[in-house]
Amino acid sequence: MTRKIIVIGAHAAGLDAASAARKTDRTAEITLITKEKKTAYSRCGLPFVLGGHIPTFDDLVVFPERFYKMMKLNLKTETTVTNIDPKAKTVAIQDKSGNEETLQYDNLVITTGAIPFVPPIKGREKKGVYVVRTIEDGEKINQALQTAKSAVIVGAGLIGLEVAVACLERGLKTTVVEFLPYVLPVLLDKGMADRVQKELEEKGMRIIVGKGAEEILGTDKVTGVLVGGEEIPADVVVVATGVRANVELAKNAGVELGEKRAIKTNLRMETNIKGIYAAGDCVETINLVTRRPTMSQLGTTAVKQAKVAGINAAGGYATFTGALGSWITRLFDTEIGGTGLTEFMAGRAGIETVTGTITSKTRADYFPGALPIRIKLIVEKESEKLIGAQIIGGEEVPQRINALSFAIQKEMTVRELAKAETCYAPPVCETWEPMVLAAEMVIRRLR
Amino acid sequence: MTRKIIVIGAHAAGLDAASAARKTDRTAEITLITKEKKTAYSRCGLPFVLGGHIPTFDDLVVFPERFYKMMKLNLKTETTVTNIDPKAKTVAIQDKSGNEETLQYDNLVITTGAIPFVPPIKGREKKGVYVVRTIEDGEKINQALQTAKSAVIVGAGLIGLEVAVACLERGLKTTVVEFLPYVLPVLLDKGMADRVQKELEEKGMRIIVGKGAEEILGTDKVTGVLVGGEEIPADVVVVATGVRANVELAKNAGVELGEKRAIKTNLRMETNIKGIYAAGDCVETINLVTRRPTMSQLGTTAVKQAKVAGINAAGGYATFTGALGSWITRLFDTEIGGTGLTEFMAGRAGIETVTGTITSKTRADYFPGALPIRIKLIVEKESEKLIGAQIIGGEEVPQRINALSFAIQKEMTVRELAKAETCYAPPVCETWEPMVLAAEMVIRRLR
Repeated sequence: MTRKIIVIGAHAAGLDAASAARKTDRTAEITLITKEKKTAYSRCGLPFVLGGHIPTFDDLVVFPERFYKMMKLNLKTETTVTNIDPKAKTVAIQDKSGNEETLQYDNLVITTGAIPFVPPIKGREKKGVYVVRTIEDGEKINQALQTAKSAVIVGAGLIGLEVAVACLERGLKTTVVEFLPYVLPVLLDKGMADRVQKELEEKGMRIIVGKGAEEILGTDKVTGVLVGGEEIPADVVVVATGVRANVELAKNAGVELGEKRAIKTNLRMETNIKGIYAAGDCVETINLVTRRPTMSQLGTTAVKQAKVAGINAAGGYATFTGALGSWITRLFDTEIGGTGLTEFMAGRAGIETVTGTITSKTRADYFPGALPIRIKLIVEKESEKLIGAQIIGGEEVPQRINALSFAIQKEMTVRELAKAETCYAPPVCETWEPMVLAAEMVIRRLR
Repeated sequence: MTRKIIVIGAHAAGLDAASAARKTDRTAEITLITKEKKTAYSRCGLPFVLGGHIPTFDDLVVFPERFYKMMKLNLKTETTVTNIDPKAKTVAIQDKSGNEETLQYDNLVITTGAIPFVPPIKGREKKGVYVVRTIEDGEKINQALQTAKSAVIVGAGLIGLEVAVACLERGLKTTVVEFLPYVLPVLLDKGMADRVQKELEEKGMRIIVGKGAEEILGTDKVTGVLVGGEEIPADVVVVATGVRANVELAKNAGVELGEKRAIKTNLRMETNIKGIYAAGDCVETINLVTRRPTMSQLGTTAVKQAKVAGINAAGGYATFTGALGSWITRLFDTEIGGTGLTEFMAGRAGIETVTGTITSKTRADYFPGALPIRIKLIVEKESEKLIGAQIIGGEEVPQRINALSFAIQKEMTVRELAKAETCYAPPVCETWEPMVLAAEMVIRRLR
């Protein structure tokens, strides 16, 4: 009998789950359901359209229509799933005209993603206050930026800073407000974050840390933001203070949530309800270092989880063991990335660490164009294993993060890293690779 | 009593050995002896000076004079070591004026490097025929290139191709002649090499593979090279057919050579003679995959070995366990690199392999500027461990090589690599990292 697979959601996780299911079961009936009009676009690309690096929002759509035909995927857009009935194995849906229908499934994959979290700032409902999650959000901000002179971004996480850079690139007076004491507070330690802040300030960005947005000012439309008693003028306010897993539908169906209030799954991405799988921003995952639940909420994690969910939902076998949270961005010409735990996060998890930080260059010293690179390594003291890394530098940061991510995944000790073989040619890197030099720095402090 | 350490040679290995010795023993008397006038310069940079990417040959000198003073290193340039007497623990030296002297040592480090190997081609003694090893070689070639119209490079290894690119960049009609059936024959497998060849040919380089240089033509000065019966005009001929370990001095002193006819050492870089250490291009090393002796002859290996030799020679303890031979170059805008074994080399070592090759992009598909990248992975069939990789692509190849080098060193299986976490942001990389996609390709072929 034909297997019926329903995927709720049709973005990174949804599409990768559906594709993996199709590759596993050539005959299954696979249906994707999404509220949105546009599907499977890259949310991560939104700030870069705003900054003008990508021509249009439509360029972010990764899978063209012919992909759905080729993969034989039924796609229902602008359709809301109103209920999941795990006993009857059905989902109730409603299209944009209000027509209701009930669909049968054998296996279900929930990829409902996340919803922007907007703190209860007074005035947050005013015109000119935006979040950055959907293409519609992006289009609205883009429209607003065309006439705006000034912007305030609330939140100095990845999205907040990426949008702030876009605003600055478009000539707006741009201010970032971060409640926590430094930028990228979940991703970097203070010393590294301070460097990022300094670089952005040198480009003309104003950054206020350790203070919250107290009120969004203006009668109907926003005119400014009140921060620490100061009125900062703003024609546009973008709130980028993180997201919350979208679990309402799953919860109502009896799907168990974990300690992070996101969907809990086993290694096969199956929930407590047999036949219901979940993947992406709506699930919690195991941190590979702490072995504790964490929220990864990165595109890479989403697609890997989704692939596993899709394979299993289609009768195959695959597992997803956890995440390190490897991340990367580029702000102006500076690449910034990390993997594993920060020193701060390790401390909070009760892990005793030794760290080492060095500044080096990306090419042979005598080769024109060499750029500075700064690397911080975090090592678990007892085992001497690498458990985290942060890099700020001019080039090849992404693949250095990948190299250190591989090292952490394979439980490389800092002594092994200090001896690890790397390649060298004057135009592209240094004889003594900066990652290796950073490891030597840690070893000196281990003694 | 003050420890006396003599280092024979004063380039990458010599200087790193001396520096490590100094850091280990603050009071030792450390003397470096070299035949050359200039010391501690980057040989790897020579082709890039010829190509005009680095302004002058003097820029290649990595350590300024004040470094020797700061590190309290005695440096004897233009001085030849004529004999080592391991019983008396002395070396006999002769300066450029012919003055002879005998120096006492407690521990000796031999870093005599390698000598260009020029095959017995008829006419190789003619004017206009060069090798590329020293700054003097570089200066002579540079001089010749100023008036030359055409060049023939004999040998399509790294140095050969790098010099050929430099010649082409300077407007010469440039031909490369390689006796083996494809370019970079020791470093790449044929399929990958053919792509490199095609790219270079598209830039205007003529490449002849599978044929040797039969004769260097011209009465006194070179006018051409005879290849497969064809006369190829050339005002300059550069022979880049590899190097041979420079072991004469060591051999005469009773230092044991290994099966590669280079100096054999233990893990502490000590030779069969107690107190005599060796490092760099003159030693053979253990290949980390095959566990058999190999000639690495890369700058990175040299400095790592030298550091270990220097620490041990100064009474410390350090080990060097072997090399993968990770390498990288940039030819025009294309980065090319590898690590571990090629499929061909693995076959010769009797290792059964499964390989996978993919072409992907270096950034999100929709992000302008994404460049193609091609990755080949070589996996040992029984253990499913990664044992080699080759990459040709537009950006971030060096750090991908490092990531795969780490993976091989930590014995990562291809299944682990296919699940490995990588980072992602649209401007700098793809959601599905090409290394991971290549691993999936191998897995499909393992079944």
